[in-house]
Amino acid sequence: MPDFQLDPRIASDSVPVTALALSDLRLMKDRRFPWLILVPRRPAVAEIIDLSGADRAVLLGEMVQVSGALRAATGCDKLNIGALGNIVRQLHVHVVARFESDAAWPGPVWGSGAAIPYAPGEAERLIARLTAAGLV
Amino acid sequence: MPDFQLDPRIASDSVPVTALALSDLRLMKDRRFPWLILVPRRPAVAEIIDLSGADRAVLLGEMVQVSGALRAATGCDKLNIGALGNIVRQLHVHVVARFESDAAWPGPVWGSGAAIPYAPGEAERLIARLTAAGLV
Repeated sequence: MPDFQLDPRIASDSVPVTALALSDLRLMKDRRFPWLILVPRRPAVAEIIDLSGADRAVLLGEMVQVSGALRAATGCDKLNIGALGNIVRQLHVHVVARFESDAAWPGPVWGSGAAIPYAPGEAERLIARLTAAGLV
Repeated sequence: MPDFQLDPRIASDSVPVTALALSDLRLMKDRRFPWLILVPRRPAVAEIIDLSGADRAVLLGEMVQVSGALRAATGCDKLNIGALGNIVRQLHVHVVARFESDAAWPGPVWGSGAAIPYAPGEAERLIARLTAAGLV
């Protein structure tokens, strides 16, 4: 089996936060939404059901950990969790903090307009707040 | 704690398939997409992280079971799984069979145009096919 390699589109659309036990945790470069993605380091897997049962349980734990920190740090109105992969097939799970005032509410973030980049230092400050809230 | 009651909008937008151990399994009334939803029978829960750990593990198992049957029965190009809840807050998990030829591809199904109802008998035939593929 080939080694895991991060999909180039995911690499360019997001910045690394940390490596969890199973997944690379990354922040999307879009200041409209506090938006994290979990990318399990398993090659050639597109669907959650194609992970092993053990990996699925670890992924669920990572989703819970990340969701809790994201909600605690942002005070969001709703979490949105999704595994779509229609454009990038490499398995990745979105965990997004949503606000009733945000640019896509109440629609989904996926396919909703163009990303707005973070200002210099802004993503790093958000990651620090998330980390203080138990992200990693 | 109040008893669980299915949200009226979910009730009107979908038909019942069966009751799994934790969740009511329902089929969305939209023939554009083979689209199932899992509604854990827990009152006043909006987020996966607000389920107990035991319930989360059961929900994951139900997502896996439903996803596998949906892919096997439809031969879809991709599964889309999502827990959004921006409009209906009662926790529900979408499991959708996506095709590169479908009405919303590669965008998400949520917020994508108007539902097209199934013809008489059509939803029942789909449910029978899903059941034969291990849905329940």
